[in-house]
Amino acid sequence: MSKLLELEDVTDPVCCAPLSGPALSEQEAAELAGVFKALSDPVRLRLLNMIASAEEGEACVCDLTGAFELTAPTISHHLKVLRQAGLIDGERRGTWVYYRVVPERLTRLSGLFALPALTTS
Amino acid sequence: MSKLLELEDVTDPVCCAPLSGPALSEQEAAELAGVFKALSDPVRLRLLNMIASAEEGEACVCDLTGAFELTAPTISHHLKVLRQAGLIDGERRGTWVYYRVVPERLTRLSGLFALPALTTS
Repeated sequence: MSKLLELEDVTDPVCCAPLSGPALSEQEAAELAGVFKALSDPVRLRLLNMIASAEEGEACVCDLTGAFELTAPTISHHLKVLRQAGLIDGERRGTWVYYRVVPERLTRLSGLFALPALTTS
Repeated sequence: MSKLLELEDVTDPVCCAPLSGPALSEQEAAELAGVFKALSDPVRLRLLNMIASAEEGEACVCDLTGAFELTAPTISHHLKVLRQAGLIDGERRGTWVYYRVVPERLTRLSGLFALPALTTS
């Protein structure tokens, strides 16, 4: 768990304006809506979870496919949706494609939902 | 902008296990997928943005409706979806309903996307 102790700085207003901050433009809202559509599927969330938590930061499609009772083409489709949303990236090496998360994208989302700490004074 | 200087602690592993952490259960993945489905609409994202950034932490439905070229029933529908996803809560006072974000839910999402800080040593 030690790798969870330090989290990336999500307070940078340029990369990560929060929902509690400036108004989203229509374009930003449309782009983010597309990302959330990609995340609105339980299998895709579990794939993203497996990729984000993989040893060495990357997961072989061969391991991802074996973890679900779904066909390889179905898993490939879900991975393509995650990739098109900019959440993951893939690299072919030999027989297999290896996936890793796009950290900038996840950090952007983390910052989006960050709330100002409440002061009760 | 001063209220953005301090962000809530999202390192609590109970409230906010990150995607880079333990495996999501099927139930957690299904629940989160439903939340992201609620977020996969640009108008709902902009409504949530307006509520999260409202003065005093709450927004009157009268102000929200006026900000869009949409009918009041359409805005009501979108607010209902956000409410059913646990992202906002509403309270009727007199003629109007006042909405505020559910901070625990947003903090959960912020923590979900938090990444361990990279050490390049």
